Amino acid sequence: MAKIAALSGFPEWLPAERLVEQHVIDVFREVAELHGFSGIETRAVEPLDQLLRKGEIDKEVYVLRRLHAEEEGADTAREDRSRTLGLHFDLTVPLARYVLEHQSSLAFPLRRFQIQKVWRGERPQDGRFREFYQADLDVIGQDTLPGHIEAEVAVVMADILHRLPMPRFTIHANTRRLSEGFFRSIGLEDQSAVLRSLDKLPKIGAAAVRDLLLTESGASPEQAQACLDFASIRTGDASFAQQVRDLGGNGEMVEQGIAELTAVIERVEAAVPGVIMADLSIARGLDYYTGTVFETFVSGHESLGSICSGGRYDALAADNRHTYPGVGLSIGLSRLVSRLLSAGLATASRSVPTCVLVSVADEQHRHLSDAAARTLRGRGIPCEVAPSAAKFGKQIRYADRRGIPFLWFPGVDGAADQVKDIRSGEQSDADAAAWEPPAEDRSVRILAADQERSSAQG
Amino acid sequence: MAKIAALSGFPEWLPAERLVEQHVIDVFREVAELHGFSGIETRAVEPLDQLLRKGEIDKEVYVLRRLHAEEEGADTAREDRSRTLGLHFDLTVPLARYVLEHQSSLAFPLRRFQIQKVWRGERPQDGRFREFYQADLDVIGQDTLPGHIEAEVAVVMADILHRLPMPRFTIHANTRRLSEGFFRSIGLEDQSAVLRSLDKLPKIGAAAVRDLLLTESGASPEQAQACLDFASIRTGDASFAQQVRDLGGNGEMVEQGIAELTAVIERVEAAVPGVIMADLSIARGLDYYTGTVFETFVSGHESLGSICSGGRYDALAADNRHTYPGVGLSIGLSRLVSRLLSAGLATASRSVPTCVLVSVADEQHRHLSDAAARTLRGRGIPCEVAPSAAKFGKQIRYADRRGIPFLWFPGVDGAADQVKDIRSGEQSDADAAAWEPPAEDRSVRILAADQERSSAQG
Repeated sequence: MAKIAALSGFPEWLPAERLVEQHVIDVFREVAELHGFSGIETRAVEPLDQLLRKGEIDKEVYVLRRLHAEEEGADTAREDRSRTLGLHFDLTVPLARYVLEHQSSLAFPLRRFQIQKVWRGERPQDGRFREFYQADLDVIGQDTLPGHIEAEVAVVMADILHRLPMPRFTIHANTRRLSEGFFRSIGLEDQSAVLRSLDKLPKIGAAAVRDLLLTESGASPEQAQACLDFASIRTGDASFAQQVRDLGGNGEMVEQGIAELTAVIERVEAAVPGVIMADLSIARGLDYYTGTVFETFVSGHESLGSICSGGRYDALAADNRHTYPGVGLSIGLSRLVSRLLSAGLATASRSVPTCVLVSVADEQHRHLSDAAARTLRGRGIPCEVAPSAAKFGKQIRYADRRGIPFLWFPGVDGAADQVKDIRSGEQSDADAAAWEPPAEDRSVRILAADQERSSAQG
Repeated sequence: MAKIAALSGFPEWLPAERLVEQHVIDVFREVAELHGFSGIETRAVEPLDQLLRKGEIDKEVYVLRRLHAEEEGADTAREDRSRTLGLHFDLTVPLARYVLEHQSSLAFPLRRFQIQKVWRGERPQDGRFREFYQADLDVIGQDTLPGHIEAEVAVVMADILHRLPMPRFTIHANTRRLSEGFFRSIGLEDQSAVLRSLDKLPKIGAAAVRDLLLTESGASPEQAQACLDFASIRTGDASFAQQVRDLGGNGEMVEQGIAELTAVIERVEAAVPGVIMADLSIARGLDYYTGTVFETFVSGHESLGSICSGGRYDALAADNRHTYPGVGLSIGLSRLVSRLLSAGLATASRSVPTCVLVSVADEQHRHLSDAAARTLRGRGIPCEVAPSAAKFGKQIRYADRRGIPFLWFPGVDGAADQVKDIRSGEQSDADAAAWEPPAEDRSVRILAADQERSSAQG
């Protein structure tokens, strides 16, 4: 037997941990469907030229090759990037391809969610995974997409995050137009360079960003200070607008940006109070986003970085006939689940789905245990039958080790069945056709660390 | 924009089709959990030497390489199969590795289910996919595993299949001991060769198998005929036993096999009547299975081959301390879903989760629509708000195209809200805090072709 070893960067959960991950996935799906989003899945592979068409080579694509092709020495495909396949590194490139490929069969605006694993060949340092779940929400229009969708997608995501077993989160919003308009109105020409510099604030700090602004964006000390002041504006309501104007922001573009961001803040606040904030430091890359941009931080876990990011883009995809604008947000789900587990923020109430272990007195009476289990299952109560007719103490340990709360004793020779609550030791007569476990014991629950924000699983 | 084309062998579903696939996955998980099985996921990759350790090179492994490593010309890893990674081609090899890697943290017997995509670089002919879902159920013991688990796993799978929107299915069972005992008792020494020959019955037919038995297994014409007669035995109860004895089957091994298979047939029949059958032609490979073996066929869709196969194996994995026997069954889920869709056996009642489209009279009143939608969602009714304040005819078409059954009209200036059933045209006053859609409209339902075997989704 070859040596068995964990692979760095490829996380794997034990059954009780997987229950937490499954819960997060279930909540995401349930809320997305409540908002009328359709779940889709795309194949795991795309042609290499598609994966690299935005020059995103830094995403470290895993390239696939059939072992047989390799052994036949068939490396001719190596240079043909339209035929070589790679594993997708996000769910946006596949979505763009899916929309174009199936456009004649899809109804637009398309509201879609997608929860799938993605792969990046990055060095697995710094908590980065090579294989991880991403969970995406996007609304894609054909040629047009109304602005109010920007707030709507944030509302759905806020609804999802609100129901997850984690500490308080805040969605930080900004809009591209406001930043660019401000930089222009204070006389800075290369707005892209300014955005790139401000994007580095969390990593290198204000002093270093100031240097960048002075050296790379041609800013004067006063302009650099205004940019840093602009980027420090954070308000939970529309009051950011006056602060921008006080810093010298003016003109049509600034006022448009203010109107846009105000609308987003107010709509999200109306739907899910207390989670949205205008944060004018949010920049998020350059060429892709064209409207509102979002990042999301968890209180006390800011070191995670943004757990949910995205925004408005005017061209997810395009062909000769149509352009597809969209608004999307994406959760780095594995990274979030990993933190929920490692920080003890969420735990499963037991390690298996089983609510009742049906004991077996001896193998001759196993059919009684099977029948009792069948009756309980018919009423939706998860149960299993003891694997062997071991001594009762051993059967209790079997249940106890897994956190199964109830042990069932089928009555032999006409005697009544009995059920024992393993935690209290209480035991009483019971009828498999009528007995109900307490509601909180029926299914596994995922418990939040503070115990108060618990929610039912499944 | 590069040319967009479907990739042969990598199936992808439209939203309404994906609802059918998701339903099949949901049913599998729900029933498995009802039986106390834990869901796990394993990483998509394994070291190449692990993937090939059983010589299963015919599975056509996809090998992974980081694009950067490739461009650096770092092909040194090519020869090192312990460091090279490949995509898993089934869920059994990963399970074996998972069990060994995590054995000290797992409770045995481990009841686990696993629903994940697997990859095989086969030529995508003949309905074979290169990427597809497999759905596995296994019970894994540490060193020992009671025989009755063989029936139990079949019962769980029968419960799952029973709840899927498809025609009648039959689980065919045999046991390795009965076949080998029979071949031995009629004087055939190379039982493996006989099994290999009989395994080809569905593909090449009885006459060709007879030739094989004569030429490759050293059988006499009478022995070959006895084998073919043995392999033609199919009974829904324990009466196969007498037929085996009538053909000359005798001895301890035959009687053991009869007892084992009888127990399986009777236990499955007691739990899920009418789905299990003793079928002594079932052989399933050679070295892996050591007890009961199963294959499953769908009435009228025998051309699919077995949709669910597996059995007992005495050594899923082993190390210096422990051996891990198991019983497992596996559904080729994508292949099954593909048939359900292509044959029109299952369809979604609508193409989106949305039950209610809340209309928008004009953008100034969108907040009323948002509020009505929020109230409906708070009561678990999936809804979305119309993307634009288009004419009502256009909003009705929006709903109609997606199969959304209800259109909601928020009342303006204190008027009551109204709701319209788009199918009947009926419209009436309604209160978002109290209105209930008919139960069958609340969530998407997956409808079986015969309309009678429908079941709620989600």
